[in-house]
Amino acid sequence: MEAQQVPKTCKVILSDTIAKKLLSEVRETLAKIEGPNASKPTLAAFLATDDPAALQYAEWSKRTCEENGFNFDLRKVDKENLEEGIIAANNDDKVDGILVYYPIWVGNHSQDKYIKETVALSKDVEGLCHTHLFNMYHNVRFLDPPTNLKKSILPCTPLAIVKTLEYLQIYNPILAYGNRLFGKTITVINRSEVNGRPLAALLANDGATVYSVDITGVQVFTRGEGIRQLRHQVHDKEGWELKDVLPLSDVVIGGVPTEKFKVPTELLRDGAVCINFSSFKNFDGPAVKEKASIYVPSIGKVTIAVLLRNLVRLIANRPRPEGSAPEDPKDAKARSEAFIEG
Amino acid sequence: MEAQQVPKTCKVILSDTIAKKLLSEVRETLAKIEGPNASKPTLAAFLATDDPAALQYAEWSKRTCEENGFNFDLRKVDKENLEEGIIAANNDDKVDGILVYYPIWVGNHSQDKYIKETVALSKDVEGLCHTHLFNMYHNVRFLDPPTNLKKSILPCTPLAIVKTLEYLQIYNPILAYGNRLFGKTITVINRSEVNGRPLAALLANDGATVYSVDITGVQVFTRGEGIRQLRHQVHDKEGWELKDVLPLSDVVIGGVPTEKFKVPTELLRDGAVCINFSSFKNFDGPAVKEKASIYVPSIGKVTIAVLLRNLVRLIANRPRPEGSAPEDPKDAKARSEAFIEG
Repeated sequence: MEAQQVPKTCKVILSDTIAKKLLSEVRETLAKIEGPNASKPTLAAFLATDDPAALQYAEWSKRTCEENGFNFDLRKVDKENLEEGIIAANNDDKVDGILVYYPIWVGNHSQDKYIKETVALSKDVEGLCHTHLFNMYHNVRFLDPPTNLKKSILPCTPLAIVKTLEYLQIYNPILAYGNRLFGKTITVINRSEVNGRPLAALLANDGATVYSVDITGVQVFTRGEGIRQLRHQVHDKEGWELKDVLPLSDVVIGGVPTEKFKVPTELLRDGAVCINFSSFKNFDGPAVKEKASIYVPSIGKVTIAVLLRNLVRLIANRPRPEGSAPEDPKDAKARSEAFIEG
Repeated sequence: MEAQQVPKTCKVILSDTIAKKLLSEVRETLAKIEGPNASKPTLAAFLATDDPAALQYAEWSKRTCEENGFNFDLRKVDKENLEEGIIAANNDDKVDGILVYYPIWVGNHSQDKYIKETVALSKDVEGLCHTHLFNMYHNVRFLDPPTNLKKSILPCTPLAIVKTLEYLQIYNPILAYGNRLFGKTITVINRSEVNGRPLAALLANDGATVYSVDITGVQVFTRGEGIRQLRHQVHDKEGWELKDVLPLSDVVIGGVPTEKFKVPTELLRDGAVCINFSSFKNFDGPAVKEKASIYVPSIGKVTIAVLLRNLVRLIANRPRPEGSAPEDPKDAKARSEAFIEG
C-alpha cells in the first residue's frame, strides 16, 4: 500500500505487451523441445482471396514469424488449386503447420468448411478441424487420452482472449487448473461460429458464468451450480438483453464487427474489465477509461503470438520420425509439459 | 488447461499456509534491514486480564516468535501497574515493540483506550494509537510525508485479512498499487471498532465496494464511481439486509462472535470467496464447500505472522541511534522498501 495521490484508475493494456510475453515463452518452449540446433519451423499460409484485410494479416504474421525464428511461407493460390496445395503441404515434411485465410467462398460456408477438413489434424495450427473443435466444445483437452501428452489445438482468436485473461490475472492460479474462472461472470458480445461461440464455451469450460449476447438474444454458458458438470451447458435467457447482463459482469468482451455498435458505458459495473476483439472499437474509449479497471482496446498481436504458440504445440505433439529409437516416456512428458501455462 | 475429471471445485486454504509464506518474508526482511549479526528483536506483551483466550493467544504468539527468531517477553501485571509497566517499556531500548491484551476493563472502553494511547507510537505493534488509526481511516500510508519512508502501522486482524486476500490473488497486481481491489464487491459481516470497521475502511481504500453489515443494518464503504475519491466514504443503505448484499459479493468475510450465526449459503454467489475471522465458524463448512471457489476457515495464524511483520516495520521505521552517522538516503529508501508487498 502506498501513495497519497489518486493514481489513474483505469489500466490500459496494449496487445503488444501481452504478445511480447507470449512470444518470449514460445521461443523458450521451442528451444526446450527442439534444442538449440533445430531447424526453423515453417508455417505455410494459403491466401486464396483478395480481401485486403487477409493480406494485411498475412504481412503481420510474416513479420512476427521472422522476428521470432520461424519461416513464413506465403502461398498465393487460386481457389481451384487450394485443395491440391493443402494436400501437398500435408505431405511435405518441411511444413510444420498450415494456415488458410478465410472466408474464401463468401456466402458458401460448406465449401470453406470442406477446406478446413482438408488440412491434416497434425498441421492444423488454427484448431479448425472437426476433431479439434469437438474437443474444445466437449472440454476434452488432450488428443491421446488417457496418456494425455498431446494437447488439442484451440482456435487462435478465442485462445488469444483466454491468454489475455490469464495475463490480466482474471484466471486465478490459486484455483485448480481447469476451474480458474470459477466465480467470474463474463459477457461476450458476438456469437459467431468462428469467435464468439467457441470463446463462450472455452470460458464456461474454465468455470465462468458466461452471458453470450448477439442480436438474437442472450444465452448463458455455465458448468452449473458449483461447476459440477464436466463441460458447459447452454440455456436461453428468454427476454434478457445486454442491459440485464452488463451490470452483473466482471469482464465484458466486445467482438461486434461494425462501427455503429458501442457497449453502453453507463451499464458497465464500476471496475469492470473490458476487452475488445473486433477490428472496430466496441467501447467508447474516453468514457470506458473513467469506469473500467482494465481496458484492452485490441488483441490483434496476441492472436498472432497464439498462432506461433499453436505451431510449437503441433511440433511438440508430433510422433518421433520413423526408424528413430522410441522416446523415453519421461522425455515425452517433459516435452508435453515444456509449455508455460498461465 | 487440462483434465477430463472434474477436480474438487472449492479450494480450502488454511491459515497456516498463508502464515508460513508471510513469516518467511518477515525473516527475509529482518535480515535485509538488520544484517546477519543483529540482536534478536524483542516484543513485550502485557497481560493484565485473566481471560483464557488472551492467555492462549499469548502462548501461540510466544511459540511463533521463538520459531522465527524473535524474543517474546510476556509480562503479567495487575491492571493498576499496567500504565507504569508500559511507560517503562516505552523507555527501554531493549524493547522493540509493545503488545497489550484487550479488553482489560470490560465495559469501560475509555480506560482501555487510555492504555492504547500510552503505548509509544514507535513501539505500537498493533497499530492502535490514534495517529495510526487516523492514518488508516484517512488512507494515509506513511508517517513522514512527503519523504514517505516510514510506513504507518495497521491493526493486525484487518491487515491479516488484507494479506489473506493478497495471497488469494483477489488483489490484482496488474492494477496500480492502492487500487488493486477496484471492481471487487466485498461483504464484511461485523462492524466492531476493533475489526469490522477498520477492515471495511482498508478494503474500500484499496478500491473495493464494501458492504459492511451488522445487526443495526448495512453501510457501503467506497471511493465512489471510478474510485476517484482519495479515501473511502460511508453511506447507509436504508432497508438493505444481508440478503441484498450477499448475491452481489465476490468475497464474503464473516466475523460474528457467536456460535448461533451462520452465513446463509443459499444466498452466496456461485464461486464466491469466503473467509472467516471469527473464533466461531460463521460458514456452514460442508455446504459452503459446494458453492464457494475458495474457503478460508480461520485466519488466526496469519494474525500472529502480521504481528511480527508489524514489529519488523517498527524496526525499519526507527530513527538511527543518537551519535551515529546520518544514513545515506539511498540506504534509508532500501530499508523502507525491503518489505515484500503483495
